[in-house]
Amino acid sequence: MVAPLKVGIAGLGTVGAEVVRLIETQARVLTGRSGRGIRVVAVTARSKGKKRSIDLRGVEWAKDPLALATHPEVDCFVELMGGAGDPALSAVEAALAAGKSVVTANKALLAKHGIKLAKAAEKHGGALNFEAAVGAAIPVIKTLREGLAGTGINRVYGILNGTCNYILTRMEQEGLSFAECLKDAQRLGYAEADPSFDVDGHDTAQKLAILASLAFGTKVAQSAVYVEGISSIAPEDLRAAAELGYRVKLLGVAVRTAKGIEQRVHPTMVPKSSSIAQVMGVTNAVTIDGEGIPPITLVGPGAGGAATASAVVADIADVARGIRANPFGRPIAQLRDTAKAPMERHEGGYYIRLLARDFPGTAAAIATRLAEQKISIESIVQRHPNGGAASADGKAVPVPVILITYATHEDAVRRALAAVQKDKVIRGRPQVIRIEKN
Amino acid sequence: MVAPLKVGIAGLGTVGAEVVRLIETQARVLTGRSGRGIRVVAVTARSKGKKRSIDLRGVEWAKDPLALATHPEVDCFVELMGGAGDPALSAVEAALAAGKSVVTANKALLAKHGIKLAKAAEKHGGALNFEAAVGAAIPVIKTLREGLAGTGINRVYGILNGTCNYILTRMEQEGLSFAECLKDAQRLGYAEADPSFDVDGHDTAQKLAILASLAFGTKVAQSAVYVEGISSIAPEDLRAAAELGYRVKLLGVAVRTAKGIEQRVHPTMVPKSSSIAQVMGVTNAVTIDGEGIPPITLVGPGAGGAATASAVVADIADVARGIRANPFGRPIAQLRDTAKAPMERHEGGYYIRLLARDFPGTAAAIATRLAEQKISIESIVQRHPNGGAASADGKAVPVPVILITYATHEDAVRRALAAVQKDKVIRGRPQVIRIEKN
Repeated sequence: MVAPLKVGIAGLGTVGAEVVRLIETQARVLTGRSGRGIRVVAVTARSKGKKRSIDLRGVEWAKDPLALATHPEVDCFVELMGGAGDPALSAVEAALAAGKSVVTANKALLAKHGIKLAKAAEKHGGALNFEAAVGAAIPVIKTLREGLAGTGINRVYGILNGTCNYILTRMEQEGLSFAECLKDAQRLGYAEADPSFDVDGHDTAQKLAILASLAFGTKVAQSAVYVEGISSIAPEDLRAAAELGYRVKLLGVAVRTAKGIEQRVHPTMVPKSSSIAQVMGVTNAVTIDGEGIPPITLVGPGAGGAATASAVVADIADVARGIRANPFGRPIAQLRDTAKAPMERHEGGYYIRLLARDFPGTAAAIATRLAEQKISIESIVQRHPNGGAASADGKAVPVPVILITYATHEDAVRRALAAVQKDKVIRGRPQVIRIEKN
Repeated sequence: MVAPLKVGIAGLGTVGAEVVRLIETQARVLTGRSGRGIRVVAVTARSKGKKRSIDLRGVEWAKDPLALATHPEVDCFVELMGGAGDPALSAVEAALAAGKSVVTANKALLAKHGIKLAKAAEKHGGALNFEAAVGAAIPVIKTLREGLAGTGINRVYGILNGTCNYILTRMEQEGLSFAECLKDAQRLGYAEADPSFDVDGHDTAQKLAILASLAFGTKVAQSAVYVEGISSIAPEDLRAAAELGYRVKLLGVAVRTAKGIEQRVHPTMVPKSSSIAQVMGVTNAVTIDGEGIPPITLVGPGAGGAATASAVVADIADVARGIRANPFGRPIAQLRDTAKAPMERHEGGYYIRLLARDFPGTAAAIATRLAEQKISIESIVQRHPNGGAASADGKAVPVPVILITYATHEDAVRRALAAVQKDKVIRGRPQVIRIEKN
């Protein structure tokens, strides 16, 4: 009988407490699956005195994360404190340097220091597992790292932030504004008091950087991700999308192009019939396009204590079974540098919403500007707000015009719209949303 | 540098040829991911002389599967011949007895002899990997075996047969009959000349037996699965389902109940809003309900040469990396016996479609019979085919009546409908479809 794997856990919030509970209640199954026992031998957290629902008798309390990470009894250091800096960073580094395995749910740490940490794991022989860092219990890391080991990946994209998907779902289903839905999300605990990390796309960007590295063998780098949030999305965009057969989702997309790996986070129109379009509320989903095979989509809870703990415990079980995968799928020496996606060279279809001052004269002007940039229009929709009549004061009423373009270059779209604005035929700024085909 | 893993492949159809091709073209990535090279050293197939698209120069041709399975140069025997009996069975047994690892896509073999083979793998130390046997490239085996290692499973269910889902999708979308859609499926190569293995649910049952074992620690046994096919489904059922907010799918369902593990395959009404209801055409999907966490759904291609080969190669890569998971998740000694689900004790909601001879007298009679069995009706829909008028000959026209019941026992439903038939108030046999809530 192999000796049990001895685990030290830093951070005893909802996730940490649930990990302790699962290791105890699922002991028999875990031993059966891993071929050896798993035992929590030491823990640490900010407050030792805090009342907790778990039984920690017989478990040592380490004085701080660093002491726990280098504890001679600990084989596997579980980091559940969060944050891209210390104490998480130095504790994980210390654990890896001591040859221990590390399990973490910390996407920020990995997006910023992933390569440095993976190098340390590679050098000292420990595992560095982080299934919970992206999509919680959705097994997307394992699928990219192991399940598609022999399949080239063309694209990986997904809904990686439940807050944004909750807001967009409510906006679409109830015709509410972004601000109203955000307030509700905050009230329900889906969004932080400062929501910018979620709604501006940075949370999605961190997760995407991790997925891109696993999929394409690039060095994980949040700085390589182009990011746009959802705060500019209006109910009329969601309404127009629905009419045109689309839904708007905040997607993280990493795709192999002729110019390299493009990593981008932005509101995206996806065909209503696609798997990703069906994902509503706080649910997350990731679609993987492998070479020569139809898309694989993984759907599930992207957050929550139990879902996150489920992934953490599975990672610990892998350590117990002796699995030592390269953290980012390939040896560090094989990972390539990533440059930031030059979005002006992005190719795809576009949704454009404008407020025309005077239809149809404006429509002709817009069409001319697009034609100058060789942009082909797939469909155009305009709707006179009051049946085309002039307003009471006799002036023309601005008319919303919605255009869907065929695939084109982003710089062409930008140039065309700049010209349209200069023409002074529209009111306000045009709304532009990229289209992602499945 | 570790020596490369030497692979022998039995069966060189579409899948086998694609496995050979992937191992060659993805060599660098595979080596990076596995930590060692992977080399095809020997192959065998029914016809040596057949023209193939792959380059087999330098690869030995073994005289038969058994010779390949016991070839002293082969570390990992890949069985892609299919069939529950010989030569696949004896070749896999021989390979395992020789301490080699085995990778197979053969669901029939596993559903029938899985435990015997897993025992041999356990005894002699080889791996027995079969990701491709269920859902091809959808990583459902890995997710149940490893990804949810520490999470109790309450239910696993899915669309495991593309042929049936293609037929049901066409029937629903185009209002066609089962027979018409089956013919099209055969023409397109989605269904065999003898389609019964698919449309009668046996293919789904084999796959479900494998999933149930991984999810619940039961001994894999196709004989424990209750099976009903889709040939009795009529376009009017799909129409009624749509009106009531459901879709009809052929599901394999394995669920933990107070009476044990229930394994069943039958046409099922699923809420239109569920992830599984969105899965159309030949696509497969599996939903896993873990304890305390929202459902995880994996969607993707359930068949096809490239998708199957992708899973086979990932399994080979796991062998190369030295991963030795218990084939069914737990040591054989921990797996429990399974009894066949007694469907008369199944609990759930029911869809019932009857042809009433004389409405509303019949409705009252039916309601009485259901009430006698303490079955509560959630909704009832009846539609007079011609506005309620009698037919030209003055006789009452039979009226379709559709009932949705609240959760009840199947034996109660059976007793109530037997009484209704005895009352002679309906024409023909009632149609009954079980409802699965998400």
